[in-house]
Amino acid sequence: MNGAESLVRSLLANGVDVCFTNPGTSEMHFVAALDHVPGMRCVLGLFEGVVTGAADGYYRMLGKPASTLLHLGPGLGNGIANLHNAKKAFSGVVNIVGDHATYHLAYNAPLTSDIEGLARPVSHWVKTSPDAKQIGADGALAVQAARQAPGQIATLILPADTAWNEAAEIAGALEPDPRKTVDPDVIENAAKAIRAAKNPLLLVGGDALRAHNLEMAGRIAAKTGAKIMSEGFNARLDRGAGRVQINRIPYVVELAQETLAPYDKVIMIGAKPPVAFFAYPDKPSTLYPESCEMVALSSVDEDITRSLEDLADALDARGTEPAGIAQPGRAELPTGGQINPEGIAKVISALLPENAIVVDESVTTGRQFFPTTAGAPPHIWMNNRGGSIGFGLPVAIGAAVACPDQKVIALEGDGSAMYTIQSLWTMARENLDITIMVFANRSYNILRGELTNVGVQNPGPRAVDMLTLDRPDIGWVDMARSMGVEAQKVSDLGALGRAFDDGLAHKGPYLIELEM
Amino acid sequence: MNGAESLVRSLLANGVDVCFTNPGTSEMHFVAALDHVPGMRCVLGLFEGVVTGAADGYYRMLGKPASTLLHLGPGLGNGIANLHNAKKAFSGVVNIVGDHATYHLAYNAPLTSDIEGLARPVSHWVKTSPDAKQIGADGALAVQAARQAPGQIATLILPADTAWNEAAEIAGALEPDPRKTVDPDVIENAAKAIRAAKNPLLLVGGDALRAHNLEMAGRIAAKTGAKIMSEGFNARLDRGAGRVQINRIPYVVELAQETLAPYDKVIMIGAKPPVAFFAYPDKPSTLYPESCEMVALSSVDEDITRSLEDLADALDARGTEPAGIAQPGRAELPTGGQINPEGIAKVISALLPENAIVVDESVTTGRQFFPTTAGAPPHIWMNNRGGSIGFGLPVAIGAAVACPDQKVIALEGDGSAMYTIQSLWTMARENLDITIMVFANRSYNILRGELTNVGVQNPGPRAVDMLTLDRPDIGWVDMARSMGVEAQKVSDLGALGRAFDDGLAHKGPYLIELEM
Repeated sequence: MNGAESLVRSLLANGVDVCFTNPGTSEMHFVAALDHVPGMRCVLGLFEGVVTGAADGYYRMLGKPASTLLHLGPGLGNGIANLHNAKKAFSGVVNIVGDHATYHLAYNAPLTSDIEGLARPVSHWVKTSPDAKQIGADGALAVQAARQAPGQIATLILPADTAWNEAAEIAGALEPDPRKTVDPDVIENAAKAIRAAKNPLLLVGGDALRAHNLEMAGRIAAKTGAKIMSEGFNARLDRGAGRVQINRIPYVVELAQETLAPYDKVIMIGAKPPVAFFAYPDKPSTLYPESCEMVALSSVDEDITRSLEDLADALDARGTEPAGIAQPGRAELPTGGQINPEGIAKVISALLPENAIVVDESVTTGRQFFPTTAGAPPHIWMNNRGGSIGFGLPVAIGAAVACPDQKVIALEGDGSAMYTIQSLWTMARENLDITIMVFANRSYNILRGELTNVGVQNPGPRAVDMLTLDRPDIGWVDMARSMGVEAQKVSDLGALGRAFDDGLAHKGPYLIELEM
Repeated sequence: MNGAESLVRSLLANGVDVCFTNPGTSEMHFVAALDHVPGMRCVLGLFEGVVTGAADGYYRMLGKPASTLLHLGPGLGNGIANLHNAKKAFSGVVNIVGDHATYHLAYNAPLTSDIEGLARPVSHWVKTSPDAKQIGADGALAVQAARQAPGQIATLILPADTAWNEAAEIAGALEPDPRKTVDPDVIENAAKAIRAAKNPLLLVGGDALRAHNLEMAGRIAAKTGAKIMSEGFNARLDRGAGRVQINRIPYVVELAQETLAPYDKVIMIGAKPPVAFFAYPDKPSTLYPESCEMVALSSVDEDITRSLEDLADALDARGTEPAGIAQPGRAELPTGGQINPEGIAKVISALLPENAIVVDESVTTGRQFFPTTAGAPPHIWMNNRGGSIGFGLPVAIGAAVACPDQKVIALEGDGSAMYTIQSLWTMARENLDITIMVFANRSYNILRGELTNVGVQNPGPRAVDMLTLDRPDIGWVDMARSMGVEAQKVSDLGALGRAFDDGLAHKGPYLIELEM
């Protein structure tokens, strides 16, 4: 058994049985091992950003890491943007990055690079495995690191000779440290703050966004009059009919300030003090009033479920009916009319299947989708926590691989979709059950607003030219078909409704271009 | 004048007048400055790998750096693979990477990352500019670093408040250090080695690949009986009728060893001791015989032109007629037959326009293109020195922006083209004069050979599945049209000839899919 095979077997022994891959020569032994070793599902991506984003989406759904297989420093480089997003979403990922044979590095061949240096900014754990005897054990350590709450990025560098030399044994499972329980003093302090507050807010993130935890937050809210809100961008939010309905802190600084202005005490549960996505001249970095007290209950790596239960007990709220339960109710399906955000939200609300997974990279278009879709059947909503666009289509792949029985809906800005457009090919190859809406507004629309926000009035033609995606228009139907994905283009809400219905009925990927 | 404007003006004052951009919010002041400041041509890419690769191609043609504009760490991350390639090609590039305002970094907003950490592995020079008073001067330093022979990657990080605060003056031009002249002892040593050698080889790279330097090498060869060869991958090689014709060291280890076996002394002129692209079990890392003496004449950062002249003088070869001049002669255009590498080479040979720039990312298909195309009209041939695929289409963009009067021919493997496929859109937007051949063999064909090379016999279906690009086939005509590029598909050599002729006659981008 060579090192590559011992690594594959050790990953499997540690519960990692999916590998999103874009391999090269230095990874050929790993690829070959897949034939000897049953049980590892391999999913090929034609660009590494697809691969790393898919691992993110997979973790968001299953709470366990997938592996990626990447080709030396540049292959890792192409995966960095979506590893950044995965890191900010607290997704566990095990990257296997091939390198030259240890003795070959001295020759500075073309692909030689500082892989550890590239890995560190986006990894919690980095190691170059020194030899084939060690690689199995290092694989187990990498998985352990990736599984460490709340989920971490582990990057294991696999020199080619470490893959091809004779290995030692397969490493058994290593368990990560358990989540820490929140101290009773901290619970009591939060309870006291809520009791003392005039307008308390429960700011929820991480595991607090799961249905049963939101329900507990809802009981506390009902008992105390507290409101509940999430951070601006959630890795995974359970929502829909019968679940406690919450809103996100708005992206736009003034709206966020206005939203948070009423609160005098904010209890942070898996969340951090809310800050502006970007700084702007003469606007604050923090979004809450200076007079507001920020009270930490539990951080994202702690036992959030228990902290909410304990807080509910401290407030005698366990038996209270939760506040803010969304009543079942779909919007009426529009039969026509111009495509606009509110109309799109109605179409989604009217047709969204139960247990759907919505991956939302709609950027400007989707900011107002929440109220209209709140009463749709129970579903999951995912946002980009890292802010690097190009996360949506790959995350949809990972979610679909993780949960083949749930429909995935990807809501994509046209600008965003282009960064990892190779995703469509993987969706077609694996026949993943994903319906994509591309909001083709032919611009980096968000940046038009941002030009004003940073103080630029009346931008001239050369600035505007850098923010527009026309000249040429991207033909999304041709694009999708070129990679084997069925597609259609719609230009009114009636057609959108019919196309969305078609997409949902289709078992496999389906793309809808929304002319806006 | 704010910092962004002083930076743009300082870049211009230092000779940088092209910016390949993919901006975001943190770069909005830079974008706005483009309207106030005339003279900076901005070219938008929809993915950062397009942007950095374009800067590489631009430098290869003009020998002066372009700037890139990238959005924080993840934007830089997406550009890393092609910066790696540019670095290995000794291309000078000035990256401007926006960051959060200095005071906003402490809040760890979603896009916060270790930009310097990401930049270092692919940069010779990295600096975060501390404030708006300093940014102009830092811009000048960055250009100076990028221009330092033989060409370097300079990454200047621009915090948003450094862009929007009030600036100081515009920085004047800073000159890099001149190229070092090679010591007379070194010249004499090389001359002595050639005289003493039974079979000397001149191994040429860097500036030694320019026509006038090759001619000087040809004089030395004629006088001494030395042969001339280049490294396996050249940033820019002048070739074609009337120029000294040379071959490249083959990629395959055994072929390379066989090619280099006859030589007892190798004179390295802008080149390094040849090493294998990858290590393989039981194959050597170095490609030359153990008994062969490697003699350095000039390194890539030294005055190579002068070193060749001095060597010619030392060998009394200045007046000798150069050996190995390629005689004019095109292959006959095939009228039909199956598409194969030799046939493709004939089509290129028959139709290649004078002064064409060939960007060769043909990987397996193109290994034998050289002999057949040697007598075509004078042209330039570019290879990937960094080995990270996805370099070809972006480099073609940069070359076309640099030299609008020269036809660019991009030879692309289908697997390679997908990494930076967004390039097609920029080609259409800028109406760049690029004809693309995509060799659609529906596989990472190189990896099939590599599986065998690393010792894997009879790979099973799961391994082979990771190397094939069918299921689904990529429709290159649809792909091109989706981004506004005219295209056709051909399946025999006659049709290829007609399509290539159409592409060459067309002023603007044109893609040909070769069914193989």
